[in-house]
Amino acid sequence: MELTGSHILSISQFDRATIDRIFDVADSMAPYAARQKVTRVLEGAILGNMFFEPSTRTRVSFGCAFNLLGGNVRETTGFETSAIAKGESLYDTARVLSGYSDVICMRHPESGSVAEFAEASRVPVINGGDGPNEHPSQALLDLYTIRRELAGKSRGIDGLRIAMIGDLKYGRTVHSLAKLLSLYENLQLVFVSPKELAMPESIIELMRERNHSVTVTDELTESIKNVDIVYSTRIQEERFTSKDEADLYRGRFRLNQAIYTQFCEPNTVIMHPLPRDSRADANELDNDLNQNPNLAIFRQTDNGILVRMALFALVLDVADLVDKYAHDVRWFTGSR
Amino acid sequence: MELTGSHILSISQFDRATIDRIFDVADSMAPYAARQKVTRVLEGAILGNMFFEPSTRTRVSFGCAFNLLGGNVRETTGFETSAIAKGESLYDTARVLSGYSDVICMRHPESGSVAEFAEASRVPVINGGDGPNEHPSQALLDLYTIRRELAGKSRGIDGLRIAMIGDLKYGRTVHSLAKLLSLYENLQLVFVSPKELAMPESIIELMRERNHSVTVTDELTESIKNVDIVYSTRIQEERFTSKDEADLYRGRFRLNQAIYTQFCEPNTVIMHPLPRDSRADANELDNDLNQNPNLAIFRQTDNGILVRMALFALVLDVADLVDKYAHDVRWFTGSR
Amino acid sequence: MELTGSHILSISQFDRATIDRIFDVADSMAPYAARQKVTRVLEGAILGNMFFEPSTRTRVSFGCAFNLLGGNVRETTGFETSAIAKGESLYDTARVLSGYSDVICMRHPESGSVAEFAEASRVPVINGGDGPNEHPSQALLDLYTIRRELAGKSRGIDGLRIAMIGDLKYGRTVHSLAKLLSLYENLQLVFVSPKELAMPESIIELMRERNHSVTVTDELTESIKNVDIVYSTRIQEERFTSKDEADLYRGRFRLNQAIYTQFCEPNTVIMHPLPRDSRADANELDNDLNQNPNLAIFRQTDNGILVRMALFALVLDVADLVDKYAHDVRWFTGSR
Repeated sequence: MELTGSHILSISQFDRATIDRIFDVADSMAPYAARQKVTRVLEGAILGNMFFEPSTRTRVSFGCAFNLLGGNVRETTGFETSAIAKGESLYDTARVLSGYSDVICMRHPESGSVAEFAEASRVPVINGGDGPNEHPSQALLDLYTIRRELAGKSRGIDGLRIAMIGDLKYGRTVHSLAKLLSLYENLQLVFVSPKELAMPESIIELMRERNHSVTVTDELTESIKNVDIVYSTRIQEERFTSKDEADLYRGRFRLNQAIYTQFCEPNTVIMHPLPRDSRADANELDNDLNQNPNLAIFRQTDNGILVRMALFALVLDVADLVDKYAHDVRWFTGSR
Repeated sequence: MELTGSHILSISQFDRATIDRIFDVADSMAPYAARQKVTRVLEGAILGNMFFEPSTRTRVSFGCAFNLLGGNVRETTGFETSAIAKGESLYDTARVLSGYSDVICMRHPESGSVAEFAEASRVPVINGGDGPNEHPSQALLDLYTIRRELAGKSRGIDGLRIAMIGDLKYGRTVHSLAKLLSLYENLQLVFVSPKELAMPESIIELMRERNHSVTVTDELTESIKNVDIVYSTRIQEERFTSKDEADLYRGRFRLNQAIYTQFCEPNTVIMHPLPRDSRADANELDNDLNQNPNLAIFRQTDNGILVRMALFALVLDVADLVDKYAHDVRWFTGSR
Repeated sequence: MELTGSHILSISQFDRATIDRIFDVADSMAPYAARQKVTRVLEGAILGNMFFEPSTRTRVSFGCAFNLLGGNVRETTGFETSAIAKGESLYDTARVLSGYSDVICMRHPESGSVAEFAEASRVPVINGGDGPNEHPSQALLDLYTIRRELAGKSRGIDGLRIAMIGDLKYGRTVHSLAKLLSLYENLQLVFVSPKELAMPESIIELMRERNHSVTVTDELTESIKNVDIVYSTRIQEERFTSKDEADLYRGRFRLNQAIYTQFCEPNTVIMHPLPRDSRADANELDNDLNQNPNLAIFRQTDNGILVRMALFALVLDVADLVDKYAHDVRWFTGSR
């Protein structure tokens, strides 16, 4: 798939070759994200960072990625309802805003809205999340993190063993990551969730069609025994149909250091899309994992910068020019 | 009128020579807005983009215009009430904020507030809209669009035939545009509105004093027959004194492709200040005009970038230096 | 105290040598703040300007200071509650956001929150105000203003005579300024407040321990007779335990030009942390002082830019490189 000038709307756009290209470019961004070098390649370019739903970290991550390539960022940070309340169409909004910037990153609460916007846009649009539908840069940064964590062990993604835990029914993140993973070979997937929040059959079938091994369970400790990655997600209590059902599972999917030590193989990598709920009865990652060097959750967000830089560089066709307009940083970098 | 160091508060500041100067500079900004070139002329300069009332598109347009000249933008995006709620005067706000930036663009819901602010400011202030009062950059971009659309037909603004349609009583945009147009010669103006939302007598008189031809009507189809420009505006239902009156006019000023084809001369230009209400019963522009090449509404917003760049360049006295600090863009520009 | 790579959380971090160093660097920033020169020393660096409580002027001041050093600013402008509402810890927020930027400025409504955030941050954090607790850059700009105002009279801070007026019980600003001042020699302090809003005993004791002279009073006119600086602050009516008590003091601490002329020595400097309440019955500074050249309140906010530039330059270790990457400005600077 050619990325120059393209919209980035859905993970279904990507084949393995495209993903490899994005990740190779992301690798090449490391000296810039680490502040060893500064580039001016996007000097004068403008990102329209249009967040019609608040999301501090995703918005700031896209903005920083663009700044690190030398570009400017103009943004909106919430649902300023005026235009929409007055009946403006997404078509009009897109025609107007795409006249201002060189690329647009858009988040919007409604499924499909970003694709509709992109159709009318005169510049490339990157989906920063359209409600329950898609958030492709999150899926890419998750997969990129898996690639990097495994690379540290001299392994590729083929043959990966991964447990996905939590709300697998409504979790946009795990659906997208699973679809991306399906492109690889010989995976062993364990889907761990409350029965009523199980992974959709369509995804399980997709995995089996592609000859991956799938196990479905609602038991945490068994499922994390023989995996390379534990990918935990949030279970929002309101997803359960009854409080009884919620109580039944309360804390049962919570991973902490004691469970990790008892059940996981050494160096099992722990991931989470964040934010995580730090309260003690949440079905997530305990704070006592914070000193565990295999906790990769902040490497995930760090990698998000690299992946988003790569997307911008590819969409605006400057991936091969970044180094040409680079120089060393002038300021203190001791803290990184 | 000298623009260097001046506030831009009202269209009444402008004579024809000043307007010509602004528009010539706007023309010279085209290669930058088209991303053929990048300039650093305002490197290090800061725009204080102070929007005390939300307006995504105007705020982003000013910000992008400043970025395209190489400057930085700091902004506020809503009525953060703290200081005002605690009784701070506009004088104090202006003295403080003008110490931070090189030029301020300000929107505020109260009529006259921006002028009061400007009086205390130590840097030039551009009025980005003060309630029902003034929004001079909008009037300028409308007039600039008319100039460019007519230039494509090898004509100037003198002799223009224009129909203004919709809420002409409360519509800030049409008042300002009419006043600017009054500076030209031999215009034929048709003011089309519900009777109780008619153009104020003062403006009609101004036009007649300056020997322009004025027709007042509440019939759409006749009024658009012999004009160069149809300028449509929103009618907000709450402007009518009764629902009966509103119902009487519902949809009667809506222009669509069928009416356009039947009644308008070929190549009649269609304008609108946006946002337009895309719902079917609104008195505005139908979506079926979107493919009509004479629909100039998005050229208007595109032109807004050029006009705002020109205002900044003139106020900060760099209009003649923009090219000196320019270089070619480094990134993909295929999409423009 | 070494500032490179350090957090700036509390004024208790500073000794006189550190303060002198910050202020000397602030002095060296004057040509940049005055737009005589532009520097690129922080090109490519990113400030994470994280305001989890609105504060237009402090946020914009930090952002402008960073821009004036050539850096980029990414920010959040209010309590976007999503992550926190979902139970995210400050630890997680800090780990994530510090992966995006080179230095973070943070405001948060809760006392101690910024220090907790800083502990988990991988980059230096500057406290932009944590509720009633600390706002060190405000205290520094106040002290820096005193230094500059006195320098104009060929004097240093030792021997200063200052009256602090208003709510001295809850006023974060006066507490911090008093603590900083305690580091100097032979001060004469007059604390003027309603009896129930008096300066805390701990601060009065600190002053006496360090051999400064302290007078406590609730009479305005006597207290401002023999001082170099009158530092006025807001009294919020809700601080009084009863309306009777509030009425008793209404307007009694208001300084206006007549009182100034009658009671103050010539050239007594008037300061205020702003915003001030301009309403006539407020216990603050009257608008009729606006033409008084000794009204230093806007020099305070101007100086805030210099002090914040100095903090960034020192924390990121570029104070000695600013001039190296500088050039003259290209745009109009007549208005400054």
